[in-house]
Amino acid sequence: MIEPTTLSLSGDRIMAVYDFFGDVTEAESRVNALRVEQTIEFPADLVPDDDIQREIVGRVESIDVVDSGQVRATVSYAVETTGYELPQLLNVLWGNSALLPGIRLVDFSFPESLLARFVGPRFGIAGLREMFDAPDRPLLATAIKPMGLSSERFAQTVYELAKGGMDMIKDDHSLANQPFAPFVERVSRCSEAVAKANEETGGKAIYMPSVNAPYHLLDERVRAAIDAGAGGLLVLPGITGFDHMRHVSSQEDVAVPIMGHPAFLGSYSASPENGIAHGRLYGTLMRLAGADLSVFPNYGGRFSFTRTECKDVARALVEPLGAITPAFPSPGGGMTLDRVVEIKEFYGNDVALLIGGDLHRGDDLVKTAAGFRTAVSG
Amino acid sequence: MIEPTTLSLSGDRIMAVYDFFGDVTEAESRVNALRVEQTIEFPADLVPDDDIQREIVGRVESIDVVDSGQVRATVSYAVETTGYELPQLLNVLWGNSALLPGIRLVDFSFPESLLARFVGPRFGIAGLREMFDAPDRPLLATAIKPMGLSSERFAQTVYELAKGGMDMIKDDHSLANQPFAPFVERVSRCSEAVAKANEETGGKAIYMPSVNAPYHLLDERVRAAIDAGAGGLLVLPGITGFDHMRHVSSQEDVAVPIMGHPAFLGSYSASPENGIAHGRLYGTLMRLAGADLSVFPNYGGRFSFTRTECKDVARALVEPLGAITPAFPSPGGGMTLDRVVEIKEFYGNDVALLIGGDLHRGDDLVKTAAGFRTAVSG
Repeated sequence: MIEPTTLSLSGDRIMAVYDFFGDVTEAESRVNALRVEQTIEFPADLVPDDDIQREIVGRVESIDVVDSGQVRATVSYAVETTGYELPQLLNVLWGNSALLPGIRLVDFSFPESLLARFVGPRFGIAGLREMFDAPDRPLLATAIKPMGLSSERFAQTVYELAKGGMDMIKDDHSLANQPFAPFVERVSRCSEAVAKANEETGGKAIYMPSVNAPYHLLDERVRAAIDAGAGGLLVLPGITGFDHMRHVSSQEDVAVPIMGHPAFLGSYSASPENGIAHGRLYGTLMRLAGADLSVFPNYGGRFSFTRTECKDVARALVEPLGAITPAFPSPGGGMTLDRVVEIKEFYGNDVALLIGGDLHRGDDLVKTAAGFRTAVSG
Repeated sequence: MIEPTTLSLSGDRIMAVYDFFGDVTEAESRVNALRVEQTIEFPADLVPDDDIQREIVGRVESIDVVDSGQVRATVSYAVETTGYELPQLLNVLWGNSALLPGIRLVDFSFPESLLARFVGPRFGIAGLREMFDAPDRPLLATAIKPMGLSSERFAQTVYELAKGGMDMIKDDHSLANQPFAPFVERVSRCSEAVAKANEETGGKAIYMPSVNAPYHLLDERVRAAIDAGAGGLLVLPGITGFDHMRHVSSQEDVAVPIMGHPAFLGSYSASPENGIAHGRLYGTLMRLAGADLSVFPNYGGRFSFTRTECKDVARALVEPLGAITPAFPSPGGGMTLDRVVEIKEFYGNDVALLIGGDLHRGDDLVKTAAGFRTAVSG
């Protein structure tokens, strides 16, 4: 038994809701194990009846039986356990519980004192609408592909897509620093190409390179992209970390929109009995970490998201979250032009439609892109 | 249809083995979708019979039916698709496929030309054995807990654990920069404490602070830890990124052992039908990214790993991997002193036993720690 501790705490608490799958008679002991696991990770019986036991160990706020194999529990944590830093916040919410069987983090909410530490999206929906002079239509996003093309050919593609009226032309998330189209060369050519197209059309298209780089080169690539004239950035927080995205989006001299991509995050949402709910992962966390747009696989494409899961993501991107501005959902993943009307209907106008490969059908990319724009605006 | 591309490639290829769960009659089309998804993410029918189609798109090396609901396929990727960088390597192996239903990455191997880009663990098993003057016994690791204690009390704990004969005393993975024990203060006190104990015992114990920090403070905290005299570092690649760990472990002026912790990684191994095989995730990737020790939940504790999964991790940490040195498995997670003999038998002597909370039972921490050491050496 350790000596009692007295702490000075704000009383502000994070709320986290977990579903426990399995024998409901074991749920209470599992919830009790979880609230210890996520905080002190220490035999609870060795901690006296002190402030650690009462305030630092997660507190069970409610336990409800959902059905014969599922229990939903709300656990609260003292905001101080996070140190007000995103990496440790993620750790409190889901660090070791990810390793426990049959638990899913289905919801969470944060006190104002924590939310106030986050800047969130710099532009968000309002800022991007202003940037693209698009007061109410859906935004149009696309990607340059396929890997293996040279920087020159990617630049030509960017040029044609911008001519056709795209708002955002991003790197495919798999473009990094491959020899076919090295990062700095590609970003320079593509930034020039979009500028040329804008000059000719009077448009405001931006090119958004992917900055999925080794840790020690991340800042350097972001800097190089901005210096080359990139109008936005694609960030992969599943690989470089959510806090890396927060860092990029809050740097004063990187004042461009950030698009968050779900690469390597899918395993968090793949199992209904583990991981993190779609809305919280691709919605709230993306937004908290500064994504102006969150890319996710649309229902009915080649991925596994349902309509409900997509709606949850879209809702989490716009619902109240302290003073943090709403962000655009950007559903993609095998989307085709013939689904534009349906997707608009589903999400409403506050959506950035992402169509990639399908634009390349036919032999005139400018024309196909323009058709996409007409379909969206019409 | 795009114009044909000619590429100059090494011919070296990464091998990745995926299990597909579901209707086996659909397996071939799903494998074909995957090999496109992980590379060009572009309609395959729009790419001519060129080097992109033949070399960049993943190549199906084999497809075997495992049983009525499972197919195993080996897909190879040109090493150039990774740009020889770890973040993009992760993306090629598991970027978007994580979002597809019913696929698990069960194995992978890399050509020498890729492995040669990685330094791997600086110390590994041989280096740590020399450091701790422990030619053949298991190493002893423990953690300071519970969160909520002051830096002074943590330092006292470190002192007692070092006096008792521990080799490695790490921060609990949840210790970050909380107000109870701020990072710099905690690391200074604890480093002093372990030095004092070593002076008194002639021992070689090290204190390993956790550097789970915001992106822009990671290098600063690592530097502060080294300057304060920390003898090693705990890194959480599930939160700060695998490439962050690689960066830390390969910095010339951070010449201390790195312990990789599995926080936030559990969702990759939770479902048998999604994610990444235990051995590859907690073994190969940890080692590739420079972990001298990989912490994972031992079987029979409070987590869900099986004996087979634990054995797979341990094997992956020591099997041939180019010129990359073997690393220590460090099974933990609710381990108790009464299991030492069994765990030694299971892993053999090349193991770093991690016992945390259980050492605090009883009223003399030095004595309990010494008992742990005796049990391990005996």
